Amino acid sequence: MIFSAMLFYFDFISPYAYLAWTQLPALAARHERELVPVPVLFAALLNAHGQKGPAEIPAKRIYLFKDVCRKAHLLGLPPVVPPPAHPFNPLLALRAATFPADKDPAGQRRLIDELFAATWAGGGGVETDAAVGACAERAGFDAAAVLAYAHSEAAKLTLRQHTEQALGHGVFGVPTIAVAQELFWGTDSLPALQAYLLGNDPLT
Amino acid sequence: MIFSAMLFYFDFISPYAYLAWTQLPALAARHERELVPVPVLFAALLNAHGQKGPAEIPAKRIYLFKDVCRKAHLLGLPPVVPPPAHPFNPLLALRAATFPADKDPAGQRRLIDELFAATWAGGGGVETDAAVGACAERAGFDAAAVLAYAHSEAAKLTLRQHTEQALGHGVFGVPTIAVAQELFWGTDSLPALQAYLLGNDPLT
Repeated sequence: MIFSAMLFYFDFISPYAYLAWTQLPALAARHERELVPVPVLFAALLNAHGQKGPAEIPAKRIYLFKDVCRKAHLLGLPPVVPPPAHPFNPLLALRAATFPADKDPAGQRRLIDELFAATWAGGGGVETDAAVGACAERAGFDAAAVLAYAHSEAAKLTLRQHTEQALGHGVFGVPTIAVAQELFWGTDSLPALQAYLLGNDPLT
Repeated sequence: MIFSAMLFYFDFISPYAYLAWTQLPALAARHERELVPVPVLFAALLNAHGQKGPAEIPAKRIYLFKDVCRKAHLLGLPPVVPPPAHPFNPLLALRAATFPADKDPAGQRRLIDELFAATWAGGGGVETDAAVGACAERAGFDAAAVLAYAHSEAAKLTLRQHTEQALGHGVFGVPTIAVAQELFWGTDSLPALQAYLLGNDPLT
């Protein structure tokens, strides 16, 4: 673990993770921090904590979608368009998102951009090989190579390790941004994260 | 239900409800809205939705307390001092908080001020007759009368009815501010509430 980096624990299933991702590269650059995306399986975090997902509580589901639309508007983003089904199985997209992580951080960032856009900005979802392959191509990769990796044992193991790392870090939801041992959960925590990075955290 | 009023669904057990309560009277006055406090039993909302409370998830509990302290600092409030035990049984305080509701809204507001301060601003909690009675006196009431009411069937019924009303309204957490059918959950939603009251809600 690089202690001075910003770890971004996320799952494509979370629209709040999408909102945070649209802000984090610029935020990290402003504060001269390395941004390390860490795809995790949100469902596994929920299971580990014995928690229901927000989408499993009908009243909360309705509220949160409205909240996401309001926040996207405030951030100046295009209207949020949910994927064809939600909740959906994010495993293929999450595994693909770990593809070039160690060798090509910029490429990984483009791939995550595309996967988030396909999920929450009207791109038709990321549940199929065709959908994930198209994202890989738009990010400048060979679709077949990314898909072969995403279906490999190595990719499955990496995602499991990431999820274990998140649990060990005290993560209970996504998105969570971790700087050393300090966690910031949700898009609403971005101002507190910035205060922390500026040395203005009231708790320190 | 008065549709132009702001209903404030709350439980003393929630530090976020305390934070919101410190802001809402002024916010309501700015927007010329009636503020109607509606004490509800948060545990009953969680049960109805099959949800764990935030304090039941150790990692989340640690995080949220830090978040509450950060938000209190941002709001210029004194440091948050949690009650002697948390979670605690808030029933007596919640029932007392309905005491003068129909005849004396200003008195009810003072009583809620005192009960929140006793819970989250170092007042030693609100679990006992002595603690709730002291709050009642500081709010200008006869302690014995408030306590007799808080132990009555009428108070128990009122709290149950409030909690049912909240569930019917789609409330899944506290604090929630409701304006007609529109809900705003948590202190993080106060900016969206203000935008809504100004006619600037992007969803309308």
